[in-house]
Amino acid sequence: MNAAVKNYQSTSIGALRDIKRETLHDALALTGAEISVNQLAPGASSPFIHSHKANEEVYIVIGGSGAFQVDGEEFDIAEGTAIRVDPAGKRSIKAAADESLTYICVQAGCGTLAQFTRTDGVIHEEKLAWK
Amino acid sequence: MNAAVKNYQSTSIGALRDIKRETLHDALALTGAEISVNQLAPGASSPFIHSHKANEEVYIVIGGSGAFQVDGEEFDIAEGTAIRVDPAGKRSIKAAADESLTYICVQAGCGTLAQFTRTDGVIHEEKLAWK
Repeated sequence: MNAAVKNYQSTSIGALRDIKRETLHDALALTGAEISVNQLAPGASSPFIHSHKANEEVYIVIGGSGAFQVDGEEFDIAEGTAIRVDPAGKRSIKAAADESLTYICVQAGCGTLAQFTRTDGVIHEEKLAWK
Repeated sequence: MNAAVKNYQSTSIGALRDIKRETLHDALALTGAEISVNQLAPGASSPFIHSHKANEEVYIVIGGSGAFQVDGEEFDIAEGTAIRVDPAGKRSIKAAADESLTYICVQAGCGTLAQFTRTDGVIHEEKLAWK
């Protein structure tokens, strides 16, 4: 390994309660997925309905509650709700009237995941050392 | 659209404080990325060092604090820290001695993201309707 070229990059977006929208693609030079961390104020909604050309999106609610809609079908969401939306799904998200909604959105090319975890991971025998 | 085939799928993993490790690939039939939500108890560490064959990983700390290491280099992490690790990076993660660490890990094929957000998104003119 060239010591000047590290196998990682890190950043900090700060405390999640202070976030409005943070996108990680440029900050981390991502090449497999774009990831955003988002917070909607009570009663706020994403400003439009959107779909995608090639990317599958996954929304993971990490705080608060609200509602989600895909193709006109609406359902409640809360901490722990995770939703996959196909590229064609016409989607939007909003926070509950009385509390903010914090969520992570991951977009990655639909059908690009060839293998993962046990088949893609390689476990190393080196002993773990922590400071 | 065939009404029987919806453009989305949703699940709930419950309150994040109760989570140990939840993987979303099978629950949501993901095809672009594998996503896991993880919590390490105070002082706990992932049990080994691992790398990947094809997937880039992104770790996003959503609660607590701890440490991360890549190729023997160790650094502190806390809520809001986001880290990209190239497939070859030998990585591990641990929680601080005095608090648990909650994080989301996204793995997606390195180099597969062709376009995103403004170039991949399509905004629809339909008026937003919420219950």
